[in-house]
Amino acid sequence: MREFPKTGKTTITRLPKRGVYDKETIYAILDEALFCTLAFVQDNEPFQIPTGFCRIDDKLYIHGSVGSHYMRELAEKKLPVCISVTLMDGLVLARSAFHHSVNYRSVIIFSKAERVNDDEEIYKALEVFTNKMQPGRWDDIRQPNESEWKKTMVLAFAIEEASAKIRTGDPKDDDEDYDLNIWAGVVPLETKRLTPIADPVLKAGITLPEYLK
Amino acid sequence: MREFPKTGKTTITRLPKRGVYDKETIYAILDEALFCTLAFVQDNEPFQIPTGFCRIDDKLYIHGSVGSHYMRELAEKKLPVCISVTLMDGLVLARSAFHHSVNYRSVIIFSKAERVNDDEEIYKALEVFTNKMQPGRWDDIRQPNESEWKKTMVLAFAIEEASAKIRTGDPKDDDEDYDLNIWAGVVPLETKRLTPIADPVLKAGITLPEYLK
Repeated sequence: MREFPKTGKTTITRLPKRGVYDKETIYAILDEALFCTLAFVQDNEPFQIPTGFCRIDDKLYIHGSVGSHYMRELAEKKLPVCISVTLMDGLVLARSAFHHSVNYRSVIIFSKAERVNDDEEIYKALEVFTNKMQPGRWDDIRQPNESEWKKTMVLAFAIEEASAKIRTGDPKDDDEDYDLNIWAGVVPLETKRLTPIADPVLKAGITLPEYLK
Repeated sequence: MREFPKTGKTTITRLPKRGVYDKETIYAILDEALFCTLAFVQDNEPFQIPTGFCRIDDKLYIHGSVGSHYMRELAEKKLPVCISVTLMDGLVLARSAFHHSVNYRSVIIFSKAERVNDDEEIYKALEVFTNKMQPGRWDDIRQPNESEWKKTMVLAFAIEEASAKIRTGDPKDDDEDYDLNIWAGVVPLETKRLTPIADPVLKAGITLPEYLK
């Protein structure tokens, strides 16, 4: 499958030409984003949690403490969840207030949690997650020990019902506005990783690893 | 009121020392964030929409087309909403996989939509929103005309039930791990506004305004 099926919940009805159902595009957005927000329903009211995540094949993974109330609830009660990811790529400054916009790439997924019990899958999820946040990090650090392993819960969400919404490019103004004496264009936005700051109590003699330079 | 009351829904139970209820801190996070995600319930299932927003006093404002189905539903049915805002400030690289973390500032608000009908309040919300996205922009552009005005819907959400969760600072490792030969520290993250890119069809002779330099 190279495209997700359009369902009643994932079909983009507002500005439908911005809707994207292509798996490759959706996965690239997921792999770039540093966090998602996960929404669920409790007592008929909406709740949201922002959390780190990673994707492996057709599953999205989050992890947390076995003491996390909401994670246990999601897994035990098989609650429907809505997961959203948004990347802001630029401010679109049009000539009219009305046509101001934003260049963005967002994804919405509808799914349900599965608690991961397979040790190999848990390990892989933690490894991919850590290397997503900081490429090269996993092989450099102390791996989880028995006690930490027991404290960690991993949930998987099958990615089967998903869509993206994307805006790119220049401002689109009304024809008669192009003659106004107003600057128009795009201010690109970028999430930058700045120079790493060493822990003040870093052991003497330890230098910045290559993958952080 | 300088602090929001802790309610059953806003009290931070997981890592409670990261919970912040101070209004000034929460408003500073809202004013810095470029988008929020808004969650609501339909047929007992969760939905989410990422959207731009601004804050004025004790209200959060979003706007959209009068044709927006979900905005009309929120206002007409007075559906409970959960709004979340997340700023990622840094990757916290500890010596152990287990203690890896993220420096972040997030806010959760529980509220209900009120459709704004007062022209002055609508105008103010659009002005503050535009200048939040790009300071100085509002006074430079063509203001909404009658027809655009009729196409725009503004919703207000009273900010009365809200809390923030914040992590700052260095990694916290287990005592015995500080002696490992592993680099530890923080990779700061920052959303940067890059050099503006002029519309390819920009009218000849128009230069970049001061507020964009």
